[in-house]
Amino acid sequence: MKVEVVAIGTELLLGQINDTNSSWIGEQLALAGLDTHFQTKVGDNEARIVEVLKLALSRSDAVICCGGLGPTHDDLTRHGIAAVMGVEQVRDEAIVARITELFASRGRYMAANNLQQADVPVGARTIAQQPGTAPGLICPVGDKVIYAVPGVPSEMKVMVSGTIIGDLQERSGVRAAILSRVLRTWGQSESGLAEMLTGVITELDAQASRGVAAPTIAFLASGIEGIKVRVTAKASTEAEARAMLAAQEQQLRAILGDLVFGVDDETMESVVLDMCREAGLTLALAESVTGGLIASRLSSHDGASEVFRGAVVAYDSAVKYDVLGVPVGPLVTEAAVAAMALGARRALGADVGLATSGVAGPSELEDIAPGTVCLGVAIGDDVVTATVRLPGDRARVSQFAAISASDLLRRTLLDRRR
Amino acid sequence: MKVEVVAIGTELLLGQINDTNSSWIGEQLALAGLDTHFQTKVGDNEARIVEVLKLALSRSDAVICCGGLGPTHDDLTRHGIAAVMGVEQVRDEAIVARITELFASRGRYMAANNLQQADVPVGARTIAQQPGTAPGLICPVGDKVIYAVPGVPSEMKVMVSGTIIGDLQERSGVRAAILSRVLRTWGQSESGLAEMLTGVITELDAQASRGVAAPTIAFLASGIEGIKVRVTAKASTEAEARAMLAAQEQQLRAILGDLVFGVDDETMESVVLDMCREAGLTLALAESVTGGLIASRLSSHDGASEVFRGAVVAYDSAVKYDVLGVPVGPLVTEAAVAAMALGARRALGADVGLATSGVAGPSELEDIAPGTVCLGVAIGDDVVTATVRLPGDRARVSQFAAISASDLLRRTLLDRRR
Repeated sequence: MKVEVVAIGTELLLGQINDTNSSWIGEQLALAGLDTHFQTKVGDNEARIVEVLKLALSRSDAVICCGGLGPTHDDLTRHGIAAVMGVEQVRDEAIVARITELFASRGRYMAANNLQQADVPVGARTIAQQPGTAPGLICPVGDKVIYAVPGVPSEMKVMVSGTIIGDLQERSGVRAAILSRVLRTWGQSESGLAEMLTGVITELDAQASRGVAAPTIAFLASGIEGIKVRVTAKASTEAEARAMLAAQEQQLRAILGDLVFGVDDETMESVVLDMCREAGLTLALAESVTGGLIASRLSSHDGASEVFRGAVVAYDSAVKYDVLGVPVGPLVTEAAVAAMALGARRALGADVGLATSGVAGPSELEDIAPGTVCLGVAIGDDVVTATVRLPGDRARVSQFAAISASDLLRRTLLDRRR
Repeated sequence: MKVEVVAIGTELLLGQINDTNSSWIGEQLALAGLDTHFQTKVGDNEARIVEVLKLALSRSDAVICCGGLGPTHDDLTRHGIAAVMGVEQVRDEAIVARITELFASRGRYMAANNLQQADVPVGARTIAQQPGTAPGLICPVGDKVIYAVPGVPSEMKVMVSGTIIGDLQERSGVRAAILSRVLRTWGQSESGLAEMLTGVITELDAQASRGVAAPTIAFLASGIEGIKVRVTAKASTEAEARAMLAAQEQQLRAILGDLVFGVDDETMESVVLDMCREAGLTLALAESVTGGLIASRLSSHDGASEVFRGAVVAYDSAVKYDVLGVPVGPLVTEAAVAAMALGARRALGADVGLATSGVAGPSELEDIAPGTVCLGVAIGDDVVTATVRLPGDRARVSQFAAISASDLLRRTLLDRRR
């Protein structure tokens, strides 16, 4: 089953917006065991949209279009799909009612062109989830299919996860339940993880080649999001697939241990916030080499305020000495981050302090090589510190330092539970 | 002149890496007045690379390939291009010497497969800039051309800016110098800017339709990067184009005034850092609704440390009261951000304090609607505050709040100069 992604919008070609939707959909397809060989971006031009859709249908079994479903004259995805299907569009009165209600409930005036979003190509059906004004579409073309979802990431994600992936798996002919789970890890490289799991993977491959149903394992390195280990199980029933997945997860966790920090959509920050909340601990940061990045990621979580008190971004050395009470002396040392973590706790009145100090580059600092980062955690007066060497340029060092710091806090909290 | 971008790499399709290269190249092409109608992502598969390149050449005049030039067996871009050209590859001894030297100078062992990067399709030439180990390629195919650049963004950018854009402009047949300049603005919507410039644009269009050489003007909304106004001038000599551009910039600046915060690659943060540096002022932040985002963007600038002392990320209300000395009371008010800005100055020992407080959403806070943000600047004991209503979800409110805050500081510093 081959699936193509087509992102529609002139602003994507002009680089005004980065197309992150296609990447996200690509990942979901991979997780569901579906192949994607091509992804295309095309502008708001009906003839070119039609050209791209026809080409995609000629070489793949299904196409997911993203964007161009809004109310303006630039939103041409519906027209393009209707042209490819060779049909007219009809206005769906149920959707008209839904859109009208949505505007009324928000107390907003509804311009007439909004109802264009209720037009549906004849033969297509709408996707049940409709978080915004534009409905998603499922449009059969012979034995193939075009899906259309809005370009707004939150709306797109609900429709792809809630309807499209399942529909694709059903269409893929294999009357099987395919389930997957992502174990999110930090602390080992991709090749390190592969080495740890060589025995498991070899055994699973052997099972599969004997025709025995076996889960598959894949690795995805995702920068500041850690390295993902994806397990996919295919079975004749969902219960069976779920059982395979659970057994496989247990085996992997036995090998990987604390390298696994979360599953699926959890992030290092959401996990750390949850662990602090459960332990009744509040958190404060002292950020130097990460420059506010950890604070920014923590505070992007809606429920952060219960746990996260704030941060001192100590970019200048004097701030470390004056505000955080770090003894005057070299600052990229474990003694300095220990003092920073304690200082953040004290200054911001939190139970836990987390600190970073290091050399982001490109130049050396205090004769220390770029990429050298010291991390410190203080819980009460107990302090844990570590020094790591991180690869990459200034931006990557800062990102890897951020996830490494939160990971040190996670491991320290785990140790306290034991 | 139509140009297509092809990004090569299975990791792009799987969503392991976001393809930001295509967007960046798309923007450069737009700035240079070159059209892009399609962008494609394809995996590390020679047959499919060939298929995509042939299709791109059939509908466009030039193709820029990104990625797949490295030393591993997955790097197939060179092979794909050679197949499309119908030629063999030859090893370029000058490049062999360059790569060997590069490894030696870094004191690193060179695996033999690195020399694969010195293979060049017969009839192709290499791009002069070679910041990494892989050279870029210029590969003529009939009267069309395929360019190949590495996927490493820093290497790609040097080659596209330094060679490819100029080569494309030359090939575009117009024996003209095309220069462009981006005026970066904040404080007006895209439609507001268009309205302010209606007279100018109408006049330029009229000139062009009379056959008089006239610059063109376009708008690009770029989120946290502001709204860009791009001026492109085409003339028979570079000096002439430069003069047209300068005159046009002067006219636009006379109309847009302080809305223009910078040009070309300057960011709001780089401009604010420069202004503070020139005025001999150090800067401290008190971030609430922006949660560390301004600090993180300031500190990503290599030279930030001369100016930027640090930030207090006051996520919890108590931090605002205790650390920043904000009087107990409502916190999304101009009085509160004024106290925060003064508190940041004092706590971090800086000349200037910049503060944000607001409601990122999705819920209301203190009965105040999501998107409401108060901003404050303190220079010495002088305080300037403002309240803005920002559109979008939690992440966008935070981003728009960050650029709005830095913009308030910029305007305050401008006023001081007068």
